[in-house]
Amino acid sequence: MSDVKRVYAFEDGNTSMKFILGGKGANLAEMTRLGLPVPPGFTITCQACVEYYGEKIYYQPAPEEKNVRVKGAYPDGLSEEIAEHVAALEAKTGKRLGNEGDPLLVSVRSGAPFSMPGMMDTILNLGLNDAAVLGLVKQTDNERFAWDSYRRFIQMFSKVVLEVEGDLFENAIISSKQARGVNNDADLTAGDLKELVATFKNIVSEHVSAANFPELAQDGQVIFPQDTSVQLRLAIEAVFKSWMNKRAIDYRKLYRIAADLGTAVNVQSMVFGNKGDTSATGVAFTRDPASGEHVFYGDFLTNAQGEDVVAGIRNTEPIADLKKVLPEAGQQLDEVFVTLENHYRDMCDIEFTIENAKLWMLQTRIGKRTARAALKIATDMVDEGLITREEAVMRIDAEQLDQLLHPQFDSKVTYDVLAKGLNASPGAAVGEVVFSADAAVIAERDGRNVILVRWETTPDDLHGMIAAKGILTSHGGKTSHAAVVARGMGKPCVCGAEALKIDAEHKVVKVNGRELHEGDVISIDGTKGIVVMGAVKLVQPEVYPEFDTVLKWADEFRTMGVRANADTPADAELSRSFGAAGIGLCRTEHMFLGERKQIVQDMILAEDEASRAKPLAELLRVQTADYIDILKAMDGLPVTIRLLDPPLHEFLDDPRELAVDVARLECSGGDAAVIASKKKLLGQIDSMTEANPMLGLRGCRLGIMFPEIYAMQVRAITHAACQLKKDGGDPRAEIMIPLVSVVTELETLRGESEKIVAGVQESEGCVFEIPIGTMIELPRAAITADEIATVADFFSFGTNDLTQTVFGFSRDDIEGKFLPRYLDRKILARNPFETIDSAVAEMVRMACEKGRSTKPKIKLGVCGEHGGDPDSVKLFHTIGLDYVSCSPFRVPLARLAAAQAKLAEGTKASDNR
Amino acid sequence: MSDVKRVYAFEDGNTSMKFILGGKGANLAEMTRLGLPVPPGFTITCQACVEYYGEKIYYQPAPEEKNVRVKGAYPDGLSEEIAEHVAALEAKTGKRLGNEGDPLLVSVRSGAPFSMPGMMDTILNLGLNDAAVLGLVKQTDNERFAWDSYRRFIQMFSKVVLEVEGDLFENAIISSKQARGVNNDADLTAGDLKELVATFKNIVSEHVSAANFPELAQDGQVIFPQDTSVQLRLAIEAVFKSWMNKRAIDYRKLYRIAADLGTAVNVQSMVFGNKGDTSATGVAFTRDPASGEHVFYGDFLTNAQGEDVVAGIRNTEPIADLKKVLPEAGQQLDEVFVTLENHYRDMCDIEFTIENAKLWMLQTRIGKRTARAALKIATDMVDEGLITREEAVMRIDAEQLDQLLHPQFDSKVTYDVLAKGLNASPGAAVGEVVFSADAAVIAERDGRNVILVRWETTPDDLHGMIAAKGILTSHGGKTSHAAVVARGMGKPCVCGAEALKIDAEHKVVKVNGRELHEGDVISIDGTKGIVVMGAVKLVQPEVYPEFDTVLKWADEFRTMGVRANADTPADAELSRSFGAAGIGLCRTEHMFLGERKQIVQDMILAEDEASRAKPLAELLRVQTADYIDILKAMDGLPVTIRLLDPPLHEFLDDPRELAVDVARLECSGGDAAVIASKKKLLGQIDSMTEANPMLGLRGCRLGIMFPEIYAMQVRAITHAACQLKKDGGDPRAEIMIPLVSVVTELETLRGESEKIVAGVQESEGCVFEIPIGTMIELPRAAITADEIATVADFFSFGTNDLTQTVFGFSRDDIEGKFLPRYLDRKILARNPFETIDSAVAEMVRMACEKGRSTKPKIKLGVCGEHGGDPDSVKLFHTIGLDYVSCSPFRVPLARLAAAQAKLAEGTKASDNR
Repeated sequence: MSDVKRVYAFEDGNTSMKFILGGKGANLAEMTRLGLPVPPGFTITCQACVEYYGEKIYYQPAPEEKNVRVKGAYPDGLSEEIAEHVAALEAKTGKRLGNEGDPLLVSVRSGAPFSMPGMMDTILNLGLNDAAVLGLVKQTDNERFAWDSYRRFIQMFSKVVLEVEGDLFENAIISSKQARGVNNDADLTAGDLKELVATFKNIVSEHVSAANFPELAQDGQVIFPQDTSVQLRLAIEAVFKSWMNKRAIDYRKLYRIAADLGTAVNVQSMVFGNKGDTSATGVAFTRDPASGEHVFYGDFLTNAQGEDVVAGIRNTEPIADLKKVLPEAGQQLDEVFVTLENHYRDMCDIEFTIENAKLWMLQTRIGKRTARAALKIATDMVDEGLITREEAVMRIDAEQLDQLLHPQFDSKVTYDVLAKGLNASPGAAVGEVVFSADAAVIAERDGRNVILVRWETTPDDLHGMIAAKGILTSHGGKTSHAAVVARGMGKPCVCGAEALKIDAEHKVVKVNGRELHEGDVISIDGTKGIVVMGAVKLVQPEVYPEFDTVLKWADEFRTMGVRANADTPADAELSRSFGAAGIGLCRTEHMFLGERKQIVQDMILAEDEASRAKPLAELLRVQTADYIDILKAMDGLPVTIRLLDPPLHEFLDDPRELAVDVARLECSGGDAAVIASKKKLLGQIDSMTEANPMLGLRGCRLGIMFPEIYAMQVRAITHAACQLKKDGGDPRAEIMIPLVSVVTELETLRGESEKIVAGVQESEGCVFEIPIGTMIELPRAAITADEIATVADFFSFGTNDLTQTVFGFSRDDIEGKFLPRYLDRKILARNPFETIDSAVAEMVRMACEKGRSTKPKIKLGVCGEHGGDPDSVKLFHTIGLDYVSCSPFRVPLARLAAAQAKLAEGTKASDNR
Repeated sequence: MSDVKRVYAFEDGNTSMKFILGGKGANLAEMTRLGLPVPPGFTITCQACVEYYGEKIYYQPAPEEKNVRVKGAYPDGLSEEIAEHVAALEAKTGKRLGNEGDPLLVSVRSGAPFSMPGMMDTILNLGLNDAAVLGLVKQTDNERFAWDSYRRFIQMFSKVVLEVEGDLFENAIISSKQARGVNNDADLTAGDLKELVATFKNIVSEHVSAANFPELAQDGQVIFPQDTSVQLRLAIEAVFKSWMNKRAIDYRKLYRIAADLGTAVNVQSMVFGNKGDTSATGVAFTRDPASGEHVFYGDFLTNAQGEDVVAGIRNTEPIADLKKVLPEAGQQLDEVFVTLENHYRDMCDIEFTIENAKLWMLQTRIGKRTARAALKIATDMVDEGLITREEAVMRIDAEQLDQLLHPQFDSKVTYDVLAKGLNASPGAAVGEVVFSADAAVIAERDGRNVILVRWETTPDDLHGMIAAKGILTSHGGKTSHAAVVARGMGKPCVCGAEALKIDAEHKVVKVNGRELHEGDVISIDGTKGIVVMGAVKLVQPEVYPEFDTVLKWADEFRTMGVRANADTPADAELSRSFGAAGIGLCRTEHMFLGERKQIVQDMILAEDEASRAKPLAELLRVQTADYIDILKAMDGLPVTIRLLDPPLHEFLDDPRELAVDVARLECSGGDAAVIASKKKLLGQIDSMTEANPMLGLRGCRLGIMFPEIYAMQVRAITHAACQLKKDGGDPRAEIMIPLVSVVTELETLRGESEKIVAGVQESEGCVFEIPIGTMIELPRAAITADEIATVADFFSFGTNDLTQTVFGFSRDDIEGKFLPRYLDRKILARNPFETIDSAVAEMVRMACEKGRSTKPKIKLGVCGEHGGDPDSVKLFHTIGLDYVSCSPFRVPLARLAAAQAKLAEGTKASDNR
C-alpha cells in the first residue's frame, strides 16, 4: 500500500531519527553503530502507529472517561515487512521464533519520540509457546527458568494484550505457594510453574471474550496463542494501543506532547538478567542525576529482570558495587559510560543486562536530571572541554531552575524527624496527608495543600502528583516512578521511607509508634529526605556556585534586561541578589495595608477636603519613608513605582459583614448611636461598591477623580528621591501610571505630576529627571499605543490585566471554575495566565510597533507574571522588549530564558530588533 | 503683522465663507449680493478671534469654575484694518461715528461658523456719546428716542464690556420711575432719560475698577468712553471674549463644536424698529419650523428692538398680521422669503427690522426645525422640484428623527389638564418639578426624572436643560430660548404657560388655584402644549406619512441592512412595523425572568442531574413556546437567537440580603430548619458569586460547563422551527453563541449544537438549515476572527461588551462615576457607549477583514446599542458590515443613517467594499 519504509533494523538507524524510530529505537540504533553490545532487533516506525489510528489519533477523552479504548486498523503490508525483519533477525541470531530447538525470544517495547516513562506497555519473552518452552529448557539447561519465563510471558501478554485482570494471575501464584507451603516465588519449582502455565491458560480461556479476539477462538473459546506471528502481531498492536490509554494521554497533556507523533515499537531479541548469579540487570546514569557529581550512578540487581529494578520491589545495590560482583562486566560498563558521554556529549541514562557475565545494552538516552545536577553537569562539561558555554546555557531548562529556588526547611528552627527516606526530588513542602490521587485532586480544588502519601506511585497516580505539593513513598529508589516524575515536575519528593506503614484503605500511617491520619499536616524535605510531623517553617534555598556561573554566562549572551517586581526593601534586596537590574513594578498599594489601613480608610471616607488633609499628610510622611527605603535598596538602578491602582473600596470593610453586623445589633437592641454610625459607614461603602471592580474606578481613573491621592504619591516619590540625592545617593525613580486607555488620561496626569515634581524639586533645590510612563494593560491602550507613546517615557506591559481584558476573563473567577475544564477539554492548550497567549502577545507586539513608530527610543518592558515564565520571556525577546520584570525568585529563570532566546535566534539577531 | 485679510465688507463675502465670516456674516454678505436690503457693515473674521486667543483658545474650565475669564491679545494691525472699514462705512452711509451732526450708530454682534443662539454678546447703538446723542436728536427730531438709545447703549456696553452688574442699572430705572410716579419705561421723558444717562455714567465710575480698564481711567477713576474708536475696540474684544464664556463652552461641548473655530464679529450700521408705529422688528421662518407646513411663520413687535421679540418679554403678534399693520413692508418681506428659499433651496430663518416703514434684513440662515418639520419640508421640496430625493434624505438629521419616536400621552387615558402653553418641542415627559438648572443636574445624577420649570430659560440654564426630561416655562414664545434649545435637543417643551405663577425662591408654583412644590410629579406634552398634575401613562407616537416616504427613499439608497434587537413577539412586531429586516439579537435570558425565575432557580440549584431534569424539561416546554411566538412574528425574516449569556447567579437571590435575613432569624430565635435551609442556599449562592461577573462564568462558558442548558435551548429552537415549518410557515432561526474568545469554544459548542439540531430534525422528519454563528465581543475574538470564522456562519459584533473590554470599562460602574468627569475634562470627547470609539471600531474593522480572509461570504452584523446611533451606523457602513441591529425605536434612524452613509460615499462605494 505504501512505499514508505516502516521497519528498520537497528543497524540501519541512528540517533537523529527519533521522530521515526522513537527515542529508544534511535538510540538502540546509535549504540549498535557505535559497536556497543546491543541485542539485535528492529524498530517499527512511529508513522506506522499514526497510520494505525488515522484521524482517531486526535481523540480526546472526557475527564470522567477512565478506560479509553481506541482501536485502529493494522496497516496493510506491515505484517509482511515485519516478517522479513523477523527472518533477518532469526538469521542473525541463529535462532527461530517458537522453535523447539533454538527458540528466539524477543521483547516488544514502546518507544515514542519523547520519553514517557512507564506510560506504555512492554511485553517480554515473546516467542514462547508449548514447543519453544521445551527448546528453552534444552538451550539453557534450566527447566525452572524456562517455565518461569513462559509463565511470565503468558501473564504479561494476557494482561497487556488480552486485557485480563492481573489479580487473577497473582491469586493463582499465591494459591500455588499456599498449596506448596512456601513464601517466595523463587521457592516454586519447575513443576509448580508448569502447572501455573496450565492454570494461566485456563484463566485466559475463561476470562477473554471470543468476540474481542476472534482470531484466537476455537469452538467459541479463546486459546492462548501458540502461533508466534500471531503473538507478535497482537503485541505490536497492543503497544500501538497503549499510545491512546488514559495515562499516556494525560502525560502528553502535562508535557505538551503532540498526539500525532505516535509511538515506535522495538522488537529486540531477549537477554536475561535472571539466569543466575552471573546475571544481573540495572539502570544507571553516567553522572549523578541529583547532584550532577561526575560519578557513575545507579542501581543493579543480580539474577533479576529489568522491571524489578524500576518497580522498587527488591532493594537494589549501588552501581559502584557492580565491579565487586561481576568485575569484567562492571569494567566494561565503565568503558561504555565513557564512550557514551564522549559520543553524546551529555549525561546518559542507560539500562543494561548482564547475561551469564556478558554485558548487553538495552537502552540509552540523555538523562533527566535535577536543576542542581543540570548546572553542575553543564559547568563541568565546559571545564572538561566537552561543550561550549553557549551550549551549557542552552542546555539548562529555565523552568527547572525553579527547583533550586524552592523553599527549604528553615535551618534555624528545630523539628522532630518522623522518618527518613531517599532525597528523591529537591525542595520542601508542607501539606495535609492524602492517600489517593483522587483525594489530592479534590483537596487542591478546595485550595488545600496536600502531600500525596503512597506505598509507591504508578502512572495511574499522575493526576494526584500534579495536584499535590509534595510526594512521599515508603518504597522505591531514586529511579522509581515517584522519584523520576517528581523531579520532572520540580516537586519535592521523599522516596523509600520504609518506616512508614501505610494503610491506604483505612487512611492511616503507622510510623515509629505514631499515627498519621488523612488531613494531618506533615512537612517533607526532598533535598534531605526528611519527613516531619506538623508544619515546618520554610525558607528559600542556598544558591550553588554553578548557578551563578551559568547565569553570568547567560548575562553575557542576553540582550534583554531583567528586573524584579518588588514592593518592599527586603524584596528589593533579594531581587538584587538574584541579579535584577532594577525594579520593574513597585506596587504602592501594598504599602497601604497593615497598620496604615486606618489612615487610608480615613482618607477615603473623608467628607470634605479639610478632613481629608490630615490622613493625606500622614500618608505623605509614611510613603516618603517607604520610597526612601526602596530607592536606597536599589541605589543606581531604576525603580518603577506604580501609582495607586486598586479600587478604593478594597481598603474598606466588607459591606455584607457590616450589613449583617447592623442587622444583629438592631435585632438585639444595640446602641442606637453605634448602629447609626455603622449604617452611615455602610452607606458610604455601598456608594463605592462596584459590580465589576476590575473594570471600574481604579488605576489612573482614581488619579483623575481624586487628584490629591496621586499628587501625594508623586510628592512622596520626589521628596524621597531628592533626599537620597542630597545624601549622595543615586536614586532612579520612575513614575508609572496604571490602566491608561486613552492618551488624554496620561496627558492629564503627566501634566499634573510634572508640576508637582517641578514644585518639589524647586523647593528642595535639587533638579533631576524622573521619567513618567504608563502600563499598557488594556486593549485600547495597545491599539492606540502610537498616540500614548507621545506622552510616555516608557511602556510596561501589564500582561495579567491585558490577558483578562483580551479574553474577558476575570482571573479570580475563572481559575477555579471553568479554566480547569477548558484545559481538560483542550479548549485552551495552556493557562494563559501562566504562559502568554498568542493573541495577547499579538497585542503586545502591535503596541510595541505602534509605540516605536511615534517614539523610536521608548523603553518597553513587561511587568506581568509572564515576565517570569521562560516560554513567555522567549516570546518577549522576539517581540523586542527592552526588559521583563518578574517576582524576585523568577529573576534567574528570566535571565537564563532571555539568553536562550538570544542564542536561539543566532546570527539573525540584529536584523530583528 | 499679517497679510491675511481680517476684515471684509458685506459686499465682499458670500455664503460659502462661513468659516471665515461666521454664519451670520456670510449670510449678511450673501443677502447683500442678492440685492436684499441689508444695512451696510463689515465682518471681522473668525481667524482674528483665533489669533486673539492663541493657545488659550483650548482652555478647559473645571466643572466648578463658574466665571471663566480668558483674556487674549488684540492682534497687531487689526485696529488699523477696522479703521479703514469704518471710514468706508462712513463714506457709504454719509454718517460718521460719534459725529454731532450725522452720527453713525452701529451694532456689534458675534457670529460663529455654527449658530450658538444667545450664547454670545451683542452691543447695539455703539457710536453714541455726549456729542453724538445731540446729533441723533437733530437727525431724528426725537429727543426721547435719542436719549433712550444712549441710555440703552451705556447700559448694554457697561454690562457686556465693563462687566457691571446689570441690576444696578435696572434699579436706577426703577428709582427714576418711582420718583416720577410712573409704571412703564415708556412713561419716562427725555429729561428723565438724560438724568439716567448721568446716573449710569456714575455707576460706571463707581463700580468699574481702573485696574481692569486702565485705558478708560482718569485720575484713578473709570470714565465711560466718549472716544468711539475705543468703544468699538472694547466691544469687539468683548465679543471675542464671549467665545470663551462658560455657557458658550458648554454649548460647544453639547453640540461638539471645535473651540478653535473662533467667532467672527459683525459691525453693522443700526436700523431702528423702535422709532414709532411704522417701525417694527421680528423673527420669522419661511415655513413652519414645528410642523413644516409651507406657511410663513414668526412673530413681530411694532416699535421694538430685536431683543424684545426673542426675550419673550412682550407678547408678540403673528407674522401673518404684519401686512395688516405695515402692508408695503409686509409684502416686501413675503417676496424676500421667496427669494431666499429659491436661493438657499431650504427653509430660512430670518431677522428683520422695519424702520419708518422701510424693511431691513438683519440676518438669515438655514432654519432649525423639528424632525416632523424636517420630513415635511424635505418631501414638500422634492414635490416642488426644489431638491432631489437624495438631497432630501441627506438633509434629515437621523438623530433628530428620534423626536418623532418619543413617547406621547396615552390617548386612552383621561387626565386633568393643569395648564396649557405653547407646543414648543414635541414629545411627552414625566418627572418631578425642579426650579433650577442645578437642582435638575443633582436630581439626574440621583437617577430621578425631572421637569425643569422656569419663568423663561436663559443660556445659563443649559446644563439643567440637558439634565431634565422636559422643560416648562410660563413665558416666551415658540422662538424663545427654551423652545429653540429644547427642539434642538429633541426634548419635550411647553412654553408660555402663563397660568403658572412661579415662585422659584420658595419653590412653589401657583396654578389655577392649585400648588406644585419641588418634587411633585407632573407630565408635559410638548406636542400639544399641555401640563398635567401627576404621571400620565406615555405611549409611542403616530407615524407621519412623510416619515415613511423619506425612509422608503432611504431604503432604496442604502446597502446595509437594518435589524432589530427584540426579545418578545410584541417587540418583534413593532420592529417589523419600523422596517426591521429581521431580529439581530433575541436575548433568551429575558425569557428566564418573571414567573419562570423559580424554574430557572430550581435548575441552577439542582444538586444532581436527576433533580435538574424536571426544571430543564419545564424550560424546554416554555422556551419552545417562546420561540414559536417570536419566529411566527418574524416569519420569513431571520431571527438570531442568542443562547444564555448572563452569569447564573443573576437569577438567584442577593446573598447579602439572605445573609442579613439569616442573621435576623438567628438573633430572634427563628425556626432552626428554616435557618438551616437558608444557610444552605446562601452557601450555594456564595459558591457561584463572582468578583467580576462580567468577566466570569457567562456566555459560551456556561455552555461548556453546563452543556444541558444550551442543549435545552438548541432543542427548543429546533422544535419551534420544525413545528412552524410543518404548519407552512417560514421560520428562519439562527443560533448565536455569545462571548467566544477562542475558536475551540465555538468549535465544541457548534459540534454539540449540530448534533442536537440533527437529532430533533430527524425525529420531527423536517430537515432544514439553522445557521450557527457567534458574537464578536471580546478583543481576543476580534484578533483571532480569521480562526473563528472557519466555524461560524455569521459574526455579530457585540459592541457594548467589546467597548467594555477594549477600554476596561464596566459600564454599570463608570457611567455614574468617572465617565461624566471624563467628558467634562475632555478626556473622552464622547461617551463610547453611545457612539462607537475609534479604537473599538478599529477592532471591528480588523475582525471583519480577518473573518472575510478565511470565509469571504461570512455574514457580518452589529447588535450592540451602537447599531442605533447614526454616527456609529455610518462608520459601520464604511467598515462594510452587512447589517446593524438596534432597539426597535432606533430602526428608522438606522435605516436613514445607512442611506446617508451610502450617499456620502458617492461613486467610490464599490471600491470600498
